[in-house]
Amino acid sequence: MTELAYDARTTALLVIDPYNDFISEGGTLWKRVKEVAEANNCVPHMKEVLDAARQAGLPVSYALHRRYRPGDYESWQYIAPIQKAAWQHKSFEYGTWRGEIRTGFEPLPGDVVASEHWCSSGFANTDLDLLLKRHGIRRVILIGLLANTCVEATARFAAELGYDVTVVSDAVASFTQAEMHAAFDINLPKYASAIAATSEILDALGT
Amino acid sequence: MTELAYDARTTALLVIDPYNDFISEGGTLWKRVKEVAEANNCVPHMKEVLDAARQAGLPVSYALHRRYRPGDYESWQYIAPIQKAAWQHKSFEYGTWRGEIRTGFEPLPGDVVASEHWCSSGFANTDLDLLLKRHGIRRVILIGLLANTCVEATARFAAELGYDVTVVSDAVASFTQAEMHAAFDINLPKYASAIAATSEILDALGT
Amino acid sequence: MTELAYDARTTALLVIDPYNDFISEGGTLWKRVKEVAEANNCVPHMKEVLDAARQAGLPVSYALHRRYRPGDYESWQYIAPIQKAAWQHKSFEYGTWRGEIRTGFEPLPGDVVASEHWCSSGFANTDLDLLLKRHGIRRVILIGLLANTCVEATARFAAELGYDVTVVSDAVASFTQAEMHAAFDINLPKYASAIAATSEILDALGT
Amino acid sequence: MTELAYDARTTALLVIDPYNDFISEGGTLWKRVKEVAEANNCVPHMKEVLDAARQAGLPVSYALHRRYRPGDYESWQYIAPIQKAAWQHKSFEYGTWRGEIRTGFEPLPGDVVASEHWCSSGFANTDLDLLLKRHGIRRVILIGLLANTCVEATARFAAELGYDVTVVSDAVASFTQAEMHAAFDINLPKYASAIAATSEILDALGT
Repeated sequence: MTELAYDARTTALLVIDPYNDFISEGGTLWKRVKEVAEANNCVPHMKEVLDAARQAGLPVSYALHRRYRPGDYESWQYIAPIQKAAWQHKSFEYGTWRGEIRTGFEPLPGDVVASEHWCSSGFANTDLDLLLKRHGIRRVILIGLLANTCVEATARFAAELGYDVTVVSDAVASFTQAEMHAAFDINLPKYASAIAATSEILDALGT
Repeated sequence: MTELAYDARTTALLVIDPYNDFISEGGTLWKRVKEVAEANNCVPHMKEVLDAARQAGLPVSYALHRRYRPGDYESWQYIAPIQKAAWQHKSFEYGTWRGEIRTGFEPLPGDVVASEHWCSSGFANTDLDLLLKRHGIRRVILIGLLANTCVEATARFAAELGYDVTVVSDAVASFTQAEMHAAFDINLPKYASAIAATSEILDALGT
Repeated sequence: MTELAYDARTTALLVIDPYNDFISEGGTLWKRVKEVAEANNCVPHMKEVLDAARQAGLPVSYALHRRYRPGDYESWQYIAPIQKAAWQHKSFEYGTWRGEIRTGFEPLPGDVVASEHWCSSGFANTDLDLLLKRHGIRRVILIGLLANTCVEATARFAAELGYDVTVVSDAVASFTQAEMHAAFDINLPKYASAIAATSEILDALGT
Repeated sequence: MTELAYDARTTALLVIDPYNDFISEGGTLWKRVKEVAEANNCVPHMKEVLDAARQAGLPVSYALHRRYRPGDYESWQYIAPIQKAAWQHKSFEYGTWRGEIRTGFEPLPGDVVASEHWCSSGFANTDLDLLLKRHGIRRVILIGLLANTCVEATARFAAELGYDVTVVSDAVASFTQAEMHAAFDINLPKYASAIAATSEILDALGT
């Protein structure tokens, strides 16, 4: 791999779904994520990368899944299985602790917070591409969850839309190691120009 | 014009920006809209079409402009003039009466309320297309404001994306008659397959 | 799984990249695909599904990868690894046999042939969504290559855009069984509401 | 207006529909454009801006309308009036002189030639946004036809997608002065941050 280097004028950190439901003790989905997330120290790494990005002056952006609200899906004529599951589990339920962003990961004034996405890609049916463009962003560094759904989907869409993509492998988690393998060993190497560890990203950001 | 007819399974009413700021006495933008809006009885017509659509069982959808929040534009590197104006006037300011939907026009449970748009088209950078698709909608009937900006932009995008478009000419207003002329006589006839009066729409909806 | 049933008025077959390069003896990529493709009888199955769809009156649509032309990538400032590979291998080179559609799989008059895609999704930066909408299509049945890149990407985008997705598991191939596993066992079950064998599709199409 | 200045690393010229049909003596549409186009010397100005852009090292990009092919619209269930007209007139018919780019305006190797658009916007359902991003483009300078359809639509979409827009007023034409007025006096000032004459653009490009 060529040495990593990021220009704060054109690179944004993109934090994916840092909801309590996913990454806080007590979250419904945390129970399913915990084993993989603790194995690679995902949450502390996410925090380290976030802090480093802020210190280095990189714009910080958020891709957030639709927080469940009653009535969201009842009238849909077709629904993808992943959306049926979000409906069933009331994932990231709006107005509840589960739908709040974990303490320490909250957006600050000036951050880019895209409108919520309904499926997996932070770019699909949202204003993320517009807001990144308005800030001059051409490269994105991805952290968050889940490896093979929202993270991979966002990486795939980013590449399709013309962004350069880095994914931080130990600041990402999923339900199973098989999903991590599918994302990091099979698919992401085709769409991300760099897959790096937190330590490498901290080095590259000079923090 | 061929006789108008709409199938409630595939046609949605699309209400554009029914904010107090635009269509209620006391709104900042109402002052600028009032003369044109009163000339064609725009607001009562909007209400008649909305009620008729609900009675006829048409899905009702909303395209809503970004309600101004502090920090929205400060970090943008380029900004369109129409967005600079929205910034300056704090249009539809979030958390204020001006950013609330006028009484009688509020979404009901089951309506499609798209994420807010940043410029003029209700489709650009929002989930409107997705939500219409999930409800089987292929044709849209447009009412609301402003004729040559949000209404025309939404009509243009709808046509580009493959929807059949009707615009209700006397349930739309703008700042000037010159703008109404540009929208209804010059541009919309190219993108909308029907431009009809409220009375014709009420007939077509059988109410 | 609920029994499969498709309405020819709202369902299209979507054939992905049936180029000689991929699925004909002598193709550069065929060498890498052959073992997996022969194991599940992919190419004959693709042909059976295509013929059955035509016989059942389903609209047939094509998602085709950019056929390499000199100068395609030289001036790009960032490029995804999968695009760098397409550049290096001159995949589906325009004007050559490798960039032609395999005999027996050619589009017929009236088929939907989308503009070429640059990365993996048949929907990204193309007119596929528009053309499907203009034909009233709401559901797509996917066959073709490669399982975890173009097929999965197109399935993911289809779900994000609001389409119902079926993937025909033995009318899809890839370079390795690990890729097939990642696509069919890990990711596609989240985005496709049905994953079916050719025989099941033929039954559902009544042919 | 602030003084115009363009950075060749981030600004592209975007030439819209320079087909013989539109801008060459003998074109079907030229007959309808001629009076307006000759009044502002549109075609020579287009050529001056194109040459100046090339000399200044600006990337040159093309937004091209679908060249009519038999079978294009027969199976569409809904069609916008402007598309019905294109069908009727076989506008820019593929394989004919009318569908060729006027001599002197042809793309050169290295130019960005987007896939053809089906309605008016050069961005809708094409790869224009992707290709501009891959070249680092954030600002576009528009020339070509028609003022209130393809030029205005492309300007509106560019602003919606996050690009900074300049339109060259005397390198654009339309069928009527009323259309020119609607575009240049009513609508474009809301979406384009600059509307400038050819002479001003030549000055800004330093040629």
